Amino acid sequence: MAETTRAVLRLHTPDRPGLVADVSTLLFKLGANIIGADQHLDTDLNSFFQRIEFRFPASTEAEREAIRQKISDACEGWKLRASLRFPDLWRRQVAILCSKQPHCIMDLLARHRAGELTMDVPLVISNHATQGEEVTRRGYRFVHEPIVDGNKKDQEARVLGHLADAKVDLIILARYMQILSSDFVSAYPERIINIHHSFLPAFIGAEPYKQAHRRGVKIIGATSHYVTADLDQGPIIAQGVIRVSHRDSWEEMERKGRDIERNILAHAVRCHLEDRIITYGNKTVVFE
Amino acid sequence: MAETTRAVLRLHTPDRPGLVADVSTLLFKLGANIIGADQHLDTDLNSFFQRIEFRFPASTEAEREAIRQKISDACEGWKLRASLRFPDLWRRQVAILCSKQPHCIMDLLARHRAGELTMDVPLVISNHATQGEEVTRRGYRFVHEPIVDGNKKDQEARVLGHLADAKVDLIILARYMQILSSDFVSAYPERIINIHHSFLPAFIGAEPYKQAHRRGVKIIGATSHYVTADLDQGPIIAQGVIRVSHRDSWEEMERKGRDIERNILAHAVRCHLEDRIITYGNKTVVFE
Amino acid sequence: MAETTRAVLRLHTPDRPGLVADVSTLLFKLGANIIGADQHLDTDLNSFFQRIEFRFPASTEAEREAIRQKISDACEGWKLRASLRFPDLWRRQVAILCSKQPHCIMDLLARHRAGELTMDVPLVISNHATQGEEVTRRGYRFVHEPIVDGNKKDQEARVLGHLADAKVDLIILARYMQILSSDFVSAYPERIINIHHSFLPAFIGAEPYKQAHRRGVKIIGATSHYVTADLDQGPIIAQGVIRVSHRDSWEEMERKGRDIERNILAHAVRCHLEDRIITYGNKTVVFE
Amino acid sequence: MAETTRAVLRLHTPDRPGLVADVSTLLFKLGANIIGADQHLDTDLNSFFQRIEFRFPASTEAEREAIRQKISDACEGWKLRASLRFPDLWRRQVAILCSKQPHCIMDLLARHRAGELTMDVPLVISNHATQGEEVTRRGYRFVHEPIVDGNKKDQEARVLGHLADAKVDLIILARYMQILSSDFVSAYPERIINIHHSFLPAFIGAEPYKQAHRRGVKIIGATSHYVTADLDQGPIIAQGVIRVSHRDSWEEMERKGRDIERNILAHAVRCHLEDRIITYGNKTVVFE
Repeated sequence: MAETTRAVLRLHTPDRPGLVADVSTLLFKLGANIIGADQHLDTDLNSFFQRIEFRFPASTEAEREAIRQKISDACEGWKLRASLRFPDLWRRQVAILCSKQPHCIMDLLARHRAGELTMDVPLVISNHATQGEEVTRRGYRFVHEPIVDGNKKDQEARVLGHLADAKVDLIILARYMQILSSDFVSAYPERIINIHHSFLPAFIGAEPYKQAHRRGVKIIGATSHYVTADLDQGPIIAQGVIRVSHRDSWEEMERKGRDIERNILAHAVRCHLEDRIITYGNKTVVFE
Repeated sequence: MAETTRAVLRLHTPDRPGLVADVSTLLFKLGANIIGADQHLDTDLNSFFQRIEFRFPASTEAEREAIRQKISDACEGWKLRASLRFPDLWRRQVAILCSKQPHCIMDLLARHRAGELTMDVPLVISNHATQGEEVTRRGYRFVHEPIVDGNKKDQEARVLGHLADAKVDLIILARYMQILSSDFVSAYPERIINIHHSFLPAFIGAEPYKQAHRRGVKIIGATSHYVTADLDQGPIIAQGVIRVSHRDSWEEMERKGRDIERNILAHAVRCHLEDRIITYGNKTVVFE
Repeated sequence: MAETTRAVLRLHTPDRPGLVADVSTLLFKLGANIIGADQHLDTDLNSFFQRIEFRFPASTEAEREAIRQKISDACEGWKLRASLRFPDLWRRQVAILCSKQPHCIMDLLARHRAGELTMDVPLVISNHATQGEEVTRRGYRFVHEPIVDGNKKDQEARVLGHLADAKVDLIILARYMQILSSDFVSAYPERIINIHHSFLPAFIGAEPYKQAHRRGVKIIGATSHYVTADLDQGPIIAQGVIRVSHRDSWEEMERKGRDIERNILAHAVRCHLEDRIITYGNKTVVFE
Repeated sequence: MAETTRAVLRLHTPDRPGLVADVSTLLFKLGANIIGADQHLDTDLNSFFQRIEFRFPASTEAEREAIRQKISDACEGWKLRASLRFPDLWRRQVAILCSKQPHCIMDLLARHRAGELTMDVPLVISNHATQGEEVTRRGYRFVHEPIVDGNKKDQEARVLGHLADAKVDLIILARYMQILSSDFVSAYPERIINIHHSFLPAFIGAEPYKQAHRRGVKIIGATSHYVTADLDQGPIIAQGVIRVSHRDSWEEMERKGRDIERNILAHAVRCHLEDRIITYGNKTVVFE
């Protein structure tokens, strides 16, 4: 059997008749074998979204580059906003930022080791030393960048330096308890995934479990979203919930919430790594 | 076998040693047979909550009254806030208020007919005539009280008149799309149950499904709560959720939400009717 | 704007390169405007499934028939198993069969009236008279066909007669407590939807709530499936669950289960009516 | 403030009038301060279950022993089946048994380290060496006891030897893929907790995810239960579920199921460690 390359093509465009036929015919002519496809039409916005996973015959970098060029040219001709990746050839370089709490960072590392998350993790950065020993013991590089004398700007600059050095494609905030500056955020558009420990938009801001306890809600949740300049306002990728009752203190809510946080964060990261997400406006299409 | 009467006692008090022993000994001495009991200690507030369901030997009103007096005297001596009901003898008189939408009102009536909700429904009131025929056809009294010339105050006065005439113990807002005045609300403290079509405190106010769609959430919900003077801020009784995705228009969210709304409202009403709820501050203890 | 007709095309076929391009090009050439599309590739079986919803310009029956013929010819040429429906022109004729319990039958009728289920309900059939008055009061035709002297065969024959007279396309078993003969079932392949009151394959057979209570499960459920000759073994369309605890008697489980039963049954029926289901082997693809 | 000891008392007895009064009066006389209490009456069996958590004044072992004796004498007089523990003084010694898969074992160790599970873990035993390095790296003792020449009996004997040496109170089967002999099981009655990777009683036995995939279910689950001599038939402690669809291969179901497995197992273990479970017949009362 000839060697093949796996590709994921994501499209986002105003809808028009014949679009699906054009794209699928193009791929067929390129010898592509479609493994999976999902699409969505937002009739209010007349926006069309598509994710196509396919294999095409190619064993050399030149062959692959030729295919990429043809798809790129066609999409340009059709005025499509397109993104093409060869996931088996290019693993994303991911930095995980954490603070003192272990549950999200350790969960991500365990899933990475178990092969659930297709990425490389060149470094873990934290403003606290707390998780350093444990991270290092598992064979990952841990960088401690504390905020010195309240100088957040300097710390951010150092963190950005590490990220640039490691050529990072994606940043995961695994309960990183610092608000990023808008400069930081704009350097990694749609490439920073956060987990907020509430069912957004409820309980924005600090100490959401205490807020939830005070309000007396009967369900708590967690929300994973892309980070934008507006705190807790970025496009939502995934949400999860769990029941609570009057018996739960806010500490107990926090404990229960941790299981949701780590599962939802891992799910959102996985969707990103598998190129299942297309953002539009302040929302996401997630082809699960 | 001697005749017995079923009773539910709810207590809310500062905690002190010996409290449970005192109460259970009192009930034992009165010949009570405890069917069920549930309790909760809020250690932050040092507040103790208890619900005891029991049977005691009594076949006449005089015997029951004697028991009531003894429990009342004891609780007064202990400075307990107590509530005692004989649920089989006193069925609550419930008014259901609705507007145009059928799903909550029709669900409540169907459950009532099926024997799921132990209450009498002497009247259904609406500011619209829409559901009148259907309500009447099922054998319930329907009162149409429209808002004339924008005069909400007059309409409220007429509604309050009907409620007083029917000696109503509980008011259910089954998607009643009018905001009640604080005078109305204060006339029925902890006796008005509303269903809000969002996962409160997210999406307070008008058109929550449109708000949810705009925000791009991945889960929607409904919240049943006691009505207080602050809109959508009263003590939460029950909440439910359902998953949505980018495929769901706000109309589709509304359709999915309806199933949650009616189930959660019915659940909250049932908890109230079975004396399972104790409110404190702006929260509830619900002994499910 | 020219008049258009809405269509839903479902395909099920062995996969081959170019399939999606062929189908979408065909539709484009016919002037179709794709509203929605969903597809699935089962790589184990090399089976391809697709549901395409589209509009095409046609205002007369002849124009529509021409389109149908072209699609049919093409699919035959490609050896596709295809099903084409014009849902706005052909509403399914649905018979609902029930026994004594009201929750599923009344829920379906309420949803039908509310416009949630696009179908006609020419008749409701029951082996008991219990729900007759209520069904009739809502304006539906109720046929009582009891089993006389244990003669199930005769009763089935009479029921089949009514179904034939009404030209029924779909039969919903809304807690119909009779086992259908294999002759009956084979007369309506993939056209009988049942709701089983357990999380199949757990608790097959009679009295599943009692079985569940005896086993001490912590979650109960309901399963909607197409009926086949093997009892409770047909292709599953939808399942739902709810938590229970030691506090729940089997009667309480039954009460809680009813909410799941009716919601899951209505969901399955809706998926069928919207042509979202493709069966294969003993399983279903459901494009939700 | 005088020193106090925390205690948990669990009762299981036929119900009789005055029982709650007797127990609470006894505790009051012993100077106990009740922190929490939960009870359940099974009216079918006339069985009463209670869990009381309290503090009593005691700073020496002798004082505690005196209290224990008084409670024990009273319960004997009342013919109660009672269990009293001082959880802060006696941490359970727990052995975790695993095979090749890491997700449950690693999750339990992470939760143990995070302080979520109040227990000591003197040893981890496995029939495979796979997880040895990782377990050891985290500072736990790993014992590899493979099955040699198919001799399961010898292996079991060696495992039982390790358990006896470590004076183990509880055994957790964290996806331990060996069936224990009835002799092994009877040596640790109600002290072996297993996680079964299906929603029991569905898919008993081997490869439940493959069974679930074959049956085409729309929800999968996991069940934690006490191990008895009958495979997968012991008293259920906790169950959890997650939605799947036709898109999920059995491998994908397995991946999704892992999150449920580890969360449900950890929850069941936590309930056991906090003395929240009372078994009766083949069922459990779990005071969550």
